[in-house]
Amino acid sequence: MAAASQARRLKGPEELAITAFERGHFTSYSACGIPYWIGGRVAERDELIARTPEEHRARDIDLRMRTEVVELDLAGRRVRARDLESGAEDWTGYDKLVLATGARPVRPRLPGIGAHRVHGVQTLDDGQRLMDTLERTRGRRAVVVGAGYIGVEMAEALVGRGFEVTVLHRGEQPMATLDPDMGALVHGAMNRMGIRTVAGAEVTKILTDEEGRAVAVATAAGDEYPADVVVLGIGVEPRTALARAAGLPLGESGGLLTDLSMRVRGHEDIWSGGDCVEVLDLVAGRNRHIPLGTHANKHGQVIGAGVGGGYATFPGVVGTAVSKVCELEIARTGLREKDALAAGLRFVTATIESTTTAGYYPGAAKTTVKMLAERRTGRLLGVQIVGGAGSAKRVDIAAVALTAGMTVEQVVSLDLGYAPPFSPVWDPILVAARRAVSAVRAADA
Amino acid sequence: MAAASQARRLKGPEELAITAFERGHFTSYSACGIPYWIGGRVAERDELIARTPEEHRARDIDLRMRTEVVELDLAGRRVRARDLESGAEDWTGYDKLVLATGARPVRPRLPGIGAHRVHGVQTLDDGQRLMDTLERTRGRRAVVVGAGYIGVEMAEALVGRGFEVTVLHRGEQPMATLDPDMGALVHGAMNRMGIRTVAGAEVTKILTDEEGRAVAVATAAGDEYPADVVVLGIGVEPRTALARAAGLPLGESGGLLTDLSMRVRGHEDIWSGGDCVEVLDLVAGRNRHIPLGTHANKHGQVIGAGVGGGYATFPGVVGTAVSKVCELEIARTGLREKDALAAGLRFVTATIESTTTAGYYPGAAKTTVKMLAERRTGRLLGVQIVGGAGSAKRVDIAAVALTAGMTVEQVVSLDLGYAPPFSPVWDPILVAARRAVSAVRAADA
Repeated sequence: MAAASQARRLKGPEELAITAFERGHFTSYSACGIPYWIGGRVAERDELIARTPEEHRARDIDLRMRTEVVELDLAGRRVRARDLESGAEDWTGYDKLVLATGARPVRPRLPGIGAHRVHGVQTLDDGQRLMDTLERTRGRRAVVVGAGYIGVEMAEALVGRGFEVTVLHRGEQPMATLDPDMGALVHGAMNRMGIRTVAGAEVTKILTDEEGRAVAVATAAGDEYPADVVVLGIGVEPRTALARAAGLPLGESGGLLTDLSMRVRGHEDIWSGGDCVEVLDLVAGRNRHIPLGTHANKHGQVIGAGVGGGYATFPGVVGTAVSKVCELEIARTGLREKDALAAGLRFVTATIESTTTAGYYPGAAKTTVKMLAERRTGRLLGVQIVGGAGSAKRVDIAAVALTAGMTVEQVVSLDLGYAPPFSPVWDPILVAARRAVSAVRAADA
Repeated sequence: MAAASQARRLKGPEELAITAFERGHFTSYSACGIPYWIGGRVAERDELIARTPEEHRARDIDLRMRTEVVELDLAGRRVRARDLESGAEDWTGYDKLVLATGARPVRPRLPGIGAHRVHGVQTLDDGQRLMDTLERTRGRRAVVVGAGYIGVEMAEALVGRGFEVTVLHRGEQPMATLDPDMGALVHGAMNRMGIRTVAGAEVTKILTDEEGRAVAVATAAGDEYPADVVVLGIGVEPRTALARAAGLPLGESGGLLTDLSMRVRGHEDIWSGGDCVEVLDLVAGRNRHIPLGTHANKHGQVIGAGVGGGYATFPGVVGTAVSKVCELEIARTGLREKDALAAGLRFVTATIESTTTAGYYPGAAKTTVKMLAERRTGRLLGVQIVGGAGSAKRVDIAAVALTAGMTVEQVVSLDLGYAPPFSPVWDPILVAARRAVSAVRAADA
């Protein structure tokens, strides 16, 4: 809908007719806000909705809700859509096509995975279904499978609703988007918040009662975790079956491949963006699937410009992500150790502890910053931050520095905002950079 | 002392003898923290002290407290120092000299300016004297002269101590380091906090009682503002009389001129840094006097490296500063409109309102961002931010982008941290950049 809106801004209805198909009940909402609604910090579901179907229609967008596109006929320049209420189908022609089919929660093929009370959380419809379960159940035990962003945010949300939460995750530490040493800090904090975490847990089965409702989660280790609700937070995958069937180019992750103007490769009149595409990781120098609302919104702007006859590009990402679990803030950008190894890079790491404000300022919170820098060149490769209030958004400093290709020596000299309520005299990012400069020198001495 | 400490790290006492002279009672403290101690947010003065004289001496630095250097004999490579307690003087020779004489509050030559209860706030000794006055006076009326960083921070501090505060300032709006339209937001917020501000106020005289204590401040408009304490916040100037007398090169502001390794220009064995030097403003392409603890600390590291036989440089600044007055956060980096005009640049401006978190997230605070971009090239020139909690440190994004010479179009594509507790889906900086991109296009259409 961001693309549709932007295209409409550039071309009026006399120049461009826009038809949009949406299989769900909602448009233009903040999927990232779902955990905060579930957890009760956002009071009403509809606060997450930026623009209703009626608002889109008022801007001359022919928006067909609860209508699923089931086939793309690229040669015929038409799509076949099914009204999910009536089952009726018809074909709609196009000159320009935008695919924004998003992603869907990964659901491993396990016994019981389709049971009642087992929920993925990707769309607002998913969120509503989970909310219905939470309101119906009298039990207070929740099992979250997966400890990535969705997993930890849902764990916080369920704690917020008074559930006793167990997070089962495969890896050594939660937050596998961080290196394990930084993930360990998240682990410790989650446990102190009363969230139970189980590392190395391979889920093998969801146990159900006679009414087909989940009652426990079983793991390969032979353990069973009782559950009144199960939330799947094991990631999402591009929803590209339609594109695949039409022969459009997909990458390793199954996401659509586009050029920098978000046109599907090899197809001048087809654009795609959001959670169903791969994006260029500028630091790793390769494509990745990074489903994130902020990228999707930028894609929408770029696609809308292209459809509307303008010009814009999405140059790529550096892999920035921020999150929180209760009071703990978590951030990362660029490469982890394993990403750098996979990219064939030699690097050093520097990990420092500092505070988010001057140490003497009331409310100074501890923050840990880990920085990766390339050997010899000293180029900044990545930053991870775990700490108290004021930690996470500092990652933006590193995100800009990564985009600019700065060395850690250049980072040390950055003129960052300093005053006691906001930072120690050396910002934690600069402290980490100083340590990284020394590490680069020592490694190549 | 940062330079001395860094030099000591690189060379032990057998290789390098270090003597340091300090006229005051304190070393290595956070001058920027003084307003928070005065205001009672930091309980004890000594919390501001990072390292005591004894700690420096334990690292083999011959630190002479309450000892003022009164003459530099460059030809003879020696300095004359006076013990401020005994009045005794003697000469000390050197091979390498570091001048870190700092700055002093500007004190216009006005009747009564030297009265009791009239305080500048630059050193911890200054702060202690002000604290003594505040503890002695039974009055509750404070007049702050000047509405820059020190002025507004001291206004907040005095409000925190229960004073009725009037801020007299010359300009149209407080915070002249911002453009007047952004300063107006600070003005409004200060008034709502109960701080009275008087614009266009030219102080002509401090009225005193028979005991030589300030009782009121008179302005050119003929008004008198009763005062039980007067705080001067009209800026500081480099304390370089000693350097001037020795014939060392000074810039327009009176600050010492150095090269990028912080050596005084033309003097291989003399370094200077901190509030007594000018720094290169990388955006304006000219020198400026920017007294700020974070720069001083970086200078100390660079000088210490040089003195210790290593190599480091301080490439310059982009003019970043952050501050707060009660709950209002204030930040700026790069050029204001008048700076850009003075630099001969043609530019556009874009001002937007947004929130510090997703709009629906509890605690979302309003934030206003103003961005300047060069016409034709679209190069980012400056950013100013005024808003609630979470506003100020976003200026770092712009500070890094300025350092990298990015265009506003490049800023729009930055991969910044997004999650509802931390940012709207478009960070306010990106929203401003989008508006600036449109303004650049419109200006050159």
